Amino acid sequence: MASYTDRLHEQIRARQTSALVGLDPRWNLLPDEIRAAAEAAGGTTSEIHARAFQSFCCELIDIVAPVVSCVKPQVAFFEQLGPAGILAVQHVIRYARRQGLIVIADAKRGDIGSTAEAYADAWLAGEDPDRAPFAADALTVNAYLGTDTLAPFVQAACERKAGLYILVRTSNPGAAAFQDRVTDSQKLFEGVADVVEALNTENWPDADYGSVGAVVGATWPEELQQLRQRMPHTPLLVPGYGSQGGTAADVAGAFDGSGLGGVINSSRGINFAHRKEPFATEFGEARWRDAVVAATQQMIEDLRSHTPAIS
Amino acid sequence: MASYTDRLHEQIRARQTSALVGLDPRWNLLPDEIRAAAEAAGGTTSEIHARAFQSFCCELIDIVAPVVSCVKPQVAFFEQLGPAGILAVQHVIRYARRQGLIVIADAKRGDIGSTAEAYADAWLAGEDPDRAPFAADALTVNAYLGTDTLAPFVQAACERKAGLYILVRTSNPGAAAFQDRVTDSQKLFEGVADVVEALNTENWPDADYGSVGAVVGATWPEELQQLRQRMPHTPLLVPGYGSQGGTAADVAGAFDGSGLGGVINSSRGINFAHRKEPFATEFGEARWRDAVVAATQQMIEDLRSHTPAIS
Repeated sequence: MASYTDRLHEQIRARQTSALVGLDPRWNLLPDEIRAAAEAAGGTTSEIHARAFQSFCCELIDIVAPVVSCVKPQVAFFEQLGPAGILAVQHVIRYARRQGLIVIADAKRGDIGSTAEAYADAWLAGEDPDRAPFAADALTVNAYLGTDTLAPFVQAACERKAGLYILVRTSNPGAAAFQDRVTDSQKLFEGVADVVEALNTENWPDADYGSVGAVVGATWPEELQQLRQRMPHTPLLVPGYGSQGGTAADVAGAFDGSGLGGVINSSRGINFAHRKEPFATEFGEARWRDAVVAATQQMIEDLRSHTPAIS
Repeated sequence: MASYTDRLHEQIRARQTSALVGLDPRWNLLPDEIRAAAEAAGGTTSEIHARAFQSFCCELIDIVAPVVSCVKPQVAFFEQLGPAGILAVQHVIRYARRQGLIVIADAKRGDIGSTAEAYADAWLAGEDPDRAPFAADALTVNAYLGTDTLAPFVQAACERKAGLYILVRTSNPGAAAFQDRVTDSQKLFEGVADVVEALNTENWPDADYGSVGAVVGATWPEELQQLRQRMPHTPLLVPGYGSQGGTAADVAGAFDGSGLGGVINSSRGINFAHRKEPFATEFGEARWRDAVVAATQQMIEDLRSHTPAIS
């Protein structure tokens, strides 16, 4: 019976990459042809945008599924469109899974007791896509409310072979405001990290890695390296590569000696590759699909050159 | 041009109560007649549950709208049902506003940059219900990611005369795990409180209260009293009264001398009043509506006896 992280690592070994493609659809950045097709089918503005988001994300999935291990839909951009957007993200998640991808729902949920349970039931399908309405393999979770509020998520992760990624050290410029506050010479994010690591050693005692991951931004390479050491049984989700400024060298610290233990996310840099150089000149908007292929390939090669080989 | 808190306080003065009714529908706890009616209309399990949640919440709204100031739908319970549940919560929010209630969406969202903006656009309608797909007056927000991640929410609150309630000291037993960590003799939640208070004095410099509220649990009466002093311009949202063990005396510290500055939430104690004494015996399940009326009235009177008069 394979845990979430077992499934993830199997996929990473098969594809020989820990690249994770974020699905961050933004109406204003979509290729014209996607917007025009969605508009031609009519409906309300939300319905049109949701249709465009869905077709764009499914095309992205088709392009990247053969070469990467997982995708990470950003739920906020779908939620912004109301129920039409929610239907779209539901479809996108299922579509990605049918294409063989691991799906990490980036929803940053978190609440207490039975409410946390409800969020877990909404998003954590784990191994069986029919187990939850939003059929994700894993979910990002905010732990500010306390250790007890993680319990329902962890229980769901154990039972369903699902994964969690707890926010530890986020990639934004202001991440330090609360996360870096020092108590007894330990920063808050280090305290959260210790809780996460303990959840893994307690619940998956015989595994190299448990299934309670940690979100650690690529924009803080030193912290990333320290956290990999501090949480040897914790899989990492590393945002901030690419558009946010993190490089492949910056994320090298996320991995163990076998090149495992981390997934590296790029969203805008791949989704909208046709808008930035060198792809804008090479392909232009009309060939946005080729730009996605090239940007994904560039990321995979960049990671291969700067991080340990996967074995 | 009235801010969110101006609108809230006007409503509180008109109703002479700061009681807030949480809308926390749970299938297993619903009155049989609600479940039977939803089942009779057919559809998938999610559709049936969503229909029951919607009709139950709209009935609750009809009952409480004449006597309380605001309602707080717990989004997780709707999200658990997938898109059908999301449609239901959208309807419930709009229905509550049409009945003249202030609506606080309890979704505990939080993310960075443009993603935070997307959540604000999803939930923060503010004064104009047509401004967002989920037409809430206010939203609960998790600030773990940092002060910069609050900016898009605060901007939306200013522009739309919407409200925020930032998680400061939550009501769960394990709230202390991270929130009580001490840095330079200041607890983390006190640091968050200071950030929240500063947002109010900066953005609403001439008002008694700004519109960036704080969530502080009734289960921690000492902290509640301290936080009221520490955040004199911050409206409080106080969960944990009733089923979680907080009493009216415990929440008295939330208010200023005019009986303003706080709203006190009760969810299960009112939603499922027919299941607990004395209402179970007095009314039973068949008269669940009368139990809701009685429990709401009891809460209002309880608050009136133990908290400052509203003026």
